[in-house]
Amino acid sequence: MNDCLFCKLIKGEIPAAKVYEDDNVLAFLDIHPVNPGHTLIVPKIHSEGFLDADDEVLKQMIVVTKKVATAILRGLGYEAFNLEQNNGKIAGQVIPHLHWHIVPRTASDGLKHWPGKEYGAGESEKVAEKIRVQIK
Amino acid sequence: MNDCLFCKLIKGEIPAAKVYEDDNVLAFLDIHPVNPGHTLIVPKIHSEGFLDADDEVLKQMIVVTKKVATAILRGLGYEAFNLEQNNGKIAGQVIPHLHWHIVPRTASDGLKHWPGKEYGAGESEKVAEKIRVQIK
Repeated sequence: MNDCLFCKLIKGEIPAAKVYEDDNVLAFLDIHPVNPGHTLIVPKIHSEGFLDADDEVLKQMIVVTKKVATAILRGLGYEAFNLEQNNGKIAGQVIPHLHWHIVPRTASDGLKHWPGKEYGAGESEKVAEKIRVQIK
Repeated sequence: MNDCLFCKLIKGEIPAAKVYEDDNVLAFLDIHPVNPGHTLIVPKIHSEGFLDADDEVLKQMIVVTKKVATAILRGLGYEAFNLEQNNGKIAGQVIPHLHWHIVPRTASDGLKHWPGKEYGAGESEKVAEKIRVQIK
């Protein structure tokens, strides 16, 4: 798309610190890293998010993500990482072009995960049923 | 693995609020949901994390993740979600059996994302090169 930041980056109109590229997928450093080496994986075919991407594109991306995450750990000496993918502005998606975050982690980075709640009695089975009936 | 919580759950030895199951993948509600409908996707073949999983397993999982995330939005009325996958204890991995989190989100849930930092001049290109040389 003409006005998409990541499409421009893929076309080389915007510079990036690239770490991997093939015919379908590009990986480059996030310019605002949670930790150094924080990398974004994007498909060259534009989709806004995860749900409107083709299954084949998701398969290509996940294999590249494994390859790049392995290289980040080896190259930068990390032992742990998170994969994250945000869908929708209220889920923290800033650029509306599908991208995975690989976030390398250290024991001392102080980052916290979101707290879990509890379901009331019988509630989880009702929630599960509402999801099950929508599986296509 | 005999002592793996998720392997026991897959074998039916531990109950779960299942939302999807096929020959390769199981999806069920997290018992400590960040928001109601928070779902875990696991492969039936045990791997500790993302990097020791077979590429074919990762491809099976990502297609199921799309299917289940779509059903969570439709069934529970959410419009946004995060995908998360934690590798290693210091990255927040609690159960050492590969699992994706689908975390549905609302505008009022108050959850924050980790802050980004800045690279110094020339630093990002050096970091990228350390990763690039490790790509196999």
